[in-house]
Order: sequence, then structure tokens, then C-alpha cells
Amino acid sequence: MTTIESYLQDNSERFETDLFEWLRMASIATDSAYDDQTRGAANWLADKFKALGLATETIETCGQPLVYAQSPPVAGAPTVLVYGHYDVQPPDPIELWTNPPFEPTVRDGNVYARGATDDKGQMITHLFGVEAALKANGSLPLQVKFLIEGEEESGGAGLDAFLKGKYDDAIGMPMAKKLAADIVVISDCSQYAPGKPAITYGLKGIIYFELFVHGPNRDLHSGSFGGTVTNPANALSEMLAKIKDADGRIQVPGFYDDVIPLSEKESAQFESLNFSDDEFKTELGVENLFGEKDFTTLERRWGRPTFDINGLWSGYQGEGAKTVLPAEAGAKFSFRLVPDQDPEKIHAALEKMLADVCPPGVRIELKNHHGAPGFVLPLGSPFMAAAARAIESGFGTAPVFVRSGGSIPVVNQFKHLLGIDTLLLGWGQDDDNPHSPDEKFSLEDFHRGIHSSACLWAEIAKVQVE
Amino acid sequence: MTTIESYLQDNSERFETDLFEWLRMASIATDSAYDDQTRGAANWLADKFKALGLATETIETCGQPLVYAQSPPVAGAPTVLVYGHYDVQPPDPIELWTNPPFEPTVRDGNVYARGATDDKGQMITHLFGVEAALKANGSLPLQVKFLIEGEEESGGAGLDAFLKGKYDDAIGMPMAKKLAADIVVISDCSQYAPGKPAITYGLKGIIYFELFVHGPNRDLHSGSFGGTVTNPANALSEMLAKIKDADGRIQVPGFYDDVIPLSEKESAQFESLNFSDDEFKTELGVENLFGEKDFTTLERRWGRPTFDINGLWSGYQGEGAKTVLPAEAGAKFSFRLVPDQDPEKIHAALEKMLADVCPPGVRIELKNHHGAPGFVLPLGSPFMAAAARAIESGFGTAPVFVRSGGSIPVVNQFKHLLGIDTLLLGWGQDDDNPHSPDEKFSLEDFHRGIHSSACLWAEIAKVQVE
Repeated sequence: MTTIESYLQDNSERFETDLFEWLRMASIATDSAYDDQTRGAANWLADKFKALGLATETIETCGQPLVYAQSPPVAGAPTVLVYGHYDVQPPDPIELWTNPPFEPTVRDGNVYARGATDDKGQMITHLFGVEAALKANGSLPLQVKFLIEGEEESGGAGLDAFLKGKYDDAIGMPMAKKLAADIVVISDCSQYAPGKPAITYGLKGIIYFELFVHGPNRDLHSGSFGGTVTNPANALSEMLAKIKDADGRIQVPGFYDDVIPLSEKESAQFESLNFSDDEFKTELGVENLFGEKDFTTLERRWGRPTFDINGLWSGYQGEGAKTVLPAEAGAKFSFRLVPDQDPEKIHAALEKMLADVCPPGVRIELKNHHGAPGFVLPLGSPFMAAAARAIESGFGTAPVFVRSGGSIPVVNQFKHLLGIDTLLLGWGQDDDNPHSPDEKFSLEDFHRGIHSSACLWAEIAKVQVE
Repeated sequence: MTTIESYLQDNSERFETDLFEWLRMASIATDSAYDDQTRGAANWLADKFKALGLATETIETCGQPLVYAQSPPVAGAPTVLVYGHYDVQPPDPIELWTNPPFEPTVRDGNVYARGATDDKGQMITHLFGVEAALKANGSLPLQVKFLIEGEEESGGAGLDAFLKGKYDDAIGMPMAKKLAADIVVISDCSQYAPGKPAITYGLKGIIYFELFVHGPNRDLHSGSFGGTVTNPANALSEMLAKIKDADGRIQVPGFYDDVIPLSEKESAQFESLNFSDDEFKTELGVENLFGEKDFTTLERRWGRPTFDINGLWSGYQGEGAKTVLPAEAGAKFSFRLVPDQDPEKIHAALEKMLADVCPPGVRIELKNHHGAPGFVLPLGSPFMAAAARAIESGFGTAPVFVRSGGSIPVVNQFKHLLGIDTLLLGWGQDDDNPHSPDEKFSLEDFHRGIHSSACLWAEIAKVQVE
């Protein structure tokens, strides 16, 4: 009798060979010189899906094609949508690579190649996971759908158009019907630490602004005009300083109204990670950490909204002194949001606050660059419990539950366009260099990921859905 | 019998011819291609002094020569030192001039040429004023010394070295003895308005800083790291915002301790100028003026210390959004000071304040670019009264008494190296374009300046000095 374990054992070498073959294809989607190889990587993947007997399509878009595949529906069982991407970051600077980026090389148990962890190596664990489950059991206990895009590293215009229904005619049905699922699975991030697999159950949202402060109609001599008009750079500093108090609390009225507080369970979970403030300080080269009062570093990093200035400019920035009273000043700044904060409500509240605190004699202009809400999957979600059991099987240890301060746009798209939550199951490590030279992926983690994926389908199949 | 008035009348045309001849010499001291013409302008002036019978020297320096001339000492009478400069600003952009900059041209009663007002046209009024007084009275009632430099527009290195005693051997005596005087006279600024001649009796000092805020050892992702460390740009804004309160009062401890308050007489004098806030707002294109509470615009502009940010930078300043938590932020800023504020005391107090208000987790570095105290000649000074009487003779109207928000380094050098106060007698107008194309000087003001100068020596001679 073939078990998942024995199948994985028997095919372990071939999984690596297949991965290396795929990694050799320089699918740099952003560079048209590599269009053939990008297309080749898509075709390679589609062929693999077909070989497993999945109904497979290559969906042409305005950009690189989407590879779509699905197993047959299973009545009464949930449907899972696996998302990933086959395109890779450009490999520059090439000269900093130890081996050529498209010649996968194994050193110290890691495979080094562009795309090793981001995202070919992580994505393909689910192809092999499905394969193992199929071979061990003859069929899958639920329907799996794959949607693998080719432009994640360059803006995802093709996927975006697809999710907005632009190719509904081409696929012969509404996109939302095609992708209908109970949960999305994405493996495109990291474990908490080596030997500490993680489920990332929350992402922050963001709202990004640019503030322009307009003063006198020209740069003025600070001697002749100082003390007579509001200096836009002073006004900008004063307004920015009012956005956060000395305890790190954001002062935009109503800012915290919709914040879902961290539960005791979440805080306890973070606490159990034994995060070291001292090591973090050393790593960043700072003498003190700082953030919203009464929260730990991890709570602030993962579960509390933040305010950061991203850019500042005004007047004279060259060498030496220039006695100018500048006509203008500006700043870029952003808030990281947590559920259920609404970017549009924050925008309106900020606009009103700035109008209130703007000193006389200057005019302000607030530009909103982009905004997206945060995402969180409740710790009590049965899908999370299912994924945790699968990971425990694959890694031999239960996963920790973490959140991230960053945003992943596609998670919001699935949530808000399709109404589907996402399980973020990262098999990578923090030092995998996903956008840098010497990108790598641990082969041990690769096989544990496949093992976890192979177990995932049966675990998710146990979740009761209407 | 020749009176000053009849001499001026008879020589009026020649004064203009002489000025135009001097203006034709392109004494652009900063451009070595013009060295011959710069030297020529110095020689021309020295010849004029010699022709008047003054003991004249051309003092070679590390840069352009100083022209020095003096009349004989007069026992019991004060000595006056006239300072001016024969070098001019470069005329670029040439194409914006109506006439070529070194071909003086008269239009609407003004002579247009580079150097017309700054400073050849104003300086030479004192040469002709001395000439007229000499010719009318046979001798001068006091000793006049002239020190005319050739590098005012380019840093004054030659004069600086001279004032520091570097050429004492060359001139055969200590510089301080050579320049010993009771009062300095400079005509290198403006009247208050057409028909309103002015004595500028106060200048502001300045202290200019650059503040660097150092945070983490590299730019960080604002999602992954926001909320964990102090953002240097936020810290910078917060610190800068604390330097001034909402009423425009500077919060550096002890900042106002040594400020000499404006006297009632000064405030009344400013009030009498009927300065229009509305016209000023329109000119600057702002809806409101702003400055230290409980002071008028002119009081703040001329008589109260100020704080202005001159430059700001941090993080991403390009187009669009970048989610960076910057490693560094910086600002250039300056305080304009009034007597008796001491730049060094302010520096020390600011350094202490910034150390106190600096948020945890960032390191600050404060660089002091330059500092100079303010200057004020008491309204009750007998020299000022003398100058006022002379101006009333020359312009037919009494001068107003104004101060300036700017600094004139040479006034501080005379004050602090030689212990001599300065009378700033400006014959120019605000729209004379001293550093721009179409620089001009009103010929009527030119002749009134000569007339005032011719009367000045007898008026100053009346001042009792020990």
C-alpha cells in the first residue's frame, strides 16, 4: 500500500529534479527579452498540471498568461484555491551571485537560484502535495483549484484585469464562479524562524499620503522676511508632530474607533515566541525601541496601527548654509492599518484634522496615493486548525501563529472581490534573499512543505462548510 | 563765494560723467577673466582720491586690492571711516538686461548698469561729498578715511585678512591704528520708500544650524518595521515643532533673556511708517501674516528674533509612493538674533534643549554653520542725529529710522574687531535690482546722496568725542 509518506520518500529526488528544471527557466516577466522563457515556465507548469489529470487552461491576459487548473468538485467538501506565481525578480546585480542565478546549485542543504523561494520553490510544493495525495489515495477529498500568475513581481496587471472580470468571455463564465472557493492557500512568505513553521494569519492595511504646504509665492530671504509669514517647513513639522503624541498614540480623531483589539490569546501567542528586543535592537543598530505605549514590540509590529513619515523635503538641501524661507514644503507619510479600520474613514478624518491644525498663512494640499484595509483570519478559524495539523504532520512540530506589518494586495483582492479568506503558509526563511543575490530555499523545508501540502487536503476536507 | 550748493550745481553733470565712466569698468571680482577691469576700477578710484589731495594707498591682499585714502587728522574732531566696495555682482543673465550691463544708460531719471546702486553709485557719493565740502570750505572739519574693498560680493577674503592684521607689516602699522575712527559710514542699502530716506540703525544677527537625526542602521520597510523603532523623520518633525509655540514664541530656554526690548520710541517710529499689512500680504501671495504674538509686522521683521527652517530632507522624495522608514533625516534652520543675544549662549541652550526633547531610539548631531550677533545703534546716538540733519539738507526731508532683518558681516567686523559703530545711510530704492538684471540707481537720489554726504562731515564734526 502506498502511503503519502512512502510516496514522498520514493519521489523525493524527482521533486528536486523537477524544481531545478523549472528554476532554469528565466521567467523574468518584466523584461520582454525573457518572454520566451517566461512563457516556457508557464507551459511547463501547465504540462505538470495536465499530467496529474487536472483540467488545465492557459488564460491569456494583457500581460503574461495565467495558468489555471482544477481537480473535480467533491460534493459536501470545501473547495481550495491555491494562488502562486511563476515569474521571478530580475537577478541583478548578477556579479554578486555565487552561482549563476538560473543554474540552480545546492550548497549546505539549500538550493540557490532566482525563484528558489519566491515563489517557484514554495508554489510547486502544492503541485507535488496534490500529486502525493492523489497517488496515495486515488483521488482528492476536496476540489483544488490553482491560479498561478506571471506578473506578481511587476504589478499583476493581467491578474487584476482577470479578477475584474475582463476575461469572463474568454473563460466562458464569470471569473467569480470559476474561482469560487472556501479558502485560498498561498505559500509565498516565511516561517517564524528555522524549525518554527508559521501561519501568517494577519496582514496590515495601509493608507499612503503626500502633503504639500504652500506658503509665499516665492522663496524669500529669511532675514528680510523671517517673522512676518508662516514658514511652510515650520508649518509642516508642526502638523506632522501633531499626528502622534509622545506615547506613540495617533491623534487623528476616531483613528482607533474600528481597531479590533488584540485578543488575550493573540498576545499570549506572540509572547510565547520569546522575541528578543535586545537582539532586535542590535540588528537595527538602535539603542532603544519605540512605539505605542503599553504594547510589546511584536504587538505593535503585527497588531497595532502605525504612522511613519516616508519622505520629507523643503528649501535648501545642498552643502553649507542658505538663508532661505522656502515657498513650499512636503512630506510623504503612511498609516499601517489593522482590521477593521477603513482607509476612507481615516482619510476623511485626517483631512479634517489637518484643516483644523494648519497654521494661518499657508495652504495645504493632501494627496492620497493608495489605500487598502488590513486582513486577519480569526485564530479560531477551522481552516487555520486544519492547516496547523497539516503543518505539524509535515514539519514534525506545530506551527506558530504570526501576523505581518506588510500588505499583500492579492489577499485583499481575494477577500474583497471574491469574499474568500486566505491561509498564508510560508515555507521560507527570513534570510532567503527573495529579492537579492543568492536567493535560496532550504531543501529540507521544500520537502516538509510538500509533506504539509499533501496532508492539507484531507485536513481541510474535514472542515464543515454549508 | 562757493557754497556746497553752488558747487554741487556746477559739477552735477561731471559727477554723472565720472560715475558712468566708473560703471563702464566691469569689476567682476569673482571672475578672473575680469581681473584687469577690476584692477582698473580700483586704480580709477585711487586716482580720484589722489586728485582730491587725500593720502591714498592701494593695499594688496590675497585677493583684490583694498583702496585706502585719508584726509589729514583734525584735532578735537571725530574721525569717520567710510566703507564701500568697487566690485560688482556678475551680470548674468545678460539677455534679461534692457541695455548692456556695462554701458550705463539713462531712462526715466535712472541710470541702468551693473554696480549702479551696489555699490559704486552709492559709494562714490561720499567721494563727491568730500570733494564738495573741500571745495566749498577749503578743508574738512574732521578726518575722513576711506576703506573700499574689491571682494564684497564674493566673501571678502582680502578685507578679512586685512582686518585680522595680516597686512600690518605691509601698511607699516597695526590695522586697528590705521582704521581708528569714531564712526563708520556705509551707503550700500535702501531708503524706506521713494521720498522717504532712511537711516538703518539696527541689523539682526544670525545663528545657523544643521540637525541630523540618525535612526536604524539602514532604511527599513515601513510595514515590517513600523511601530518598532523611532522614525528619524518623525523625530525631526517633533523636535522642530517644539522650538516655537503656537504664538510664535521660541521655546529654547533663556532665548529671550538678553533681548533688548523695542523701546516705545522705536515702536512709535515703526508705527509712523504706515506699513500696510494688506499690501504686504498681496505682494507675498499669502492670506495671513504670522509671527510672534503681540508684535506688529515691522516689529517682528526688524526688532524681534525669529526661527525659520531653511531646509528639510528625509527618505523618499521622488514621484509616487515608497514605503520606507528612513534611516536618517535632517534640517537646516536658523535663528535671527537681536541685541544683546549671544549666538554662543543660544547654541548651548539649543543643544541642551534638543538633548532633552530628543525621542528615545534616535541619535542627534547638531552642526553650527555660522553665527553673528545683532547690531543696533541707539536712537539717541549723536552720530545718528548728525546724519539725520545731513540727510534732511540733502533730501529736503527728515529721514525715518528703520532696522533690517538681514545681517551685514562687515558691520559686525567693525564693531567687534575695531569697536566702532556704523551709520547705514542707504540712498537706493527697494526695486533697484542690486543682484538682478536691469540694476538701476535714481540720479535724483544720487545727487541727494552727494548733497547729504557733503553736509555730513560738518554735522559729524559737531559731535563731542573724547
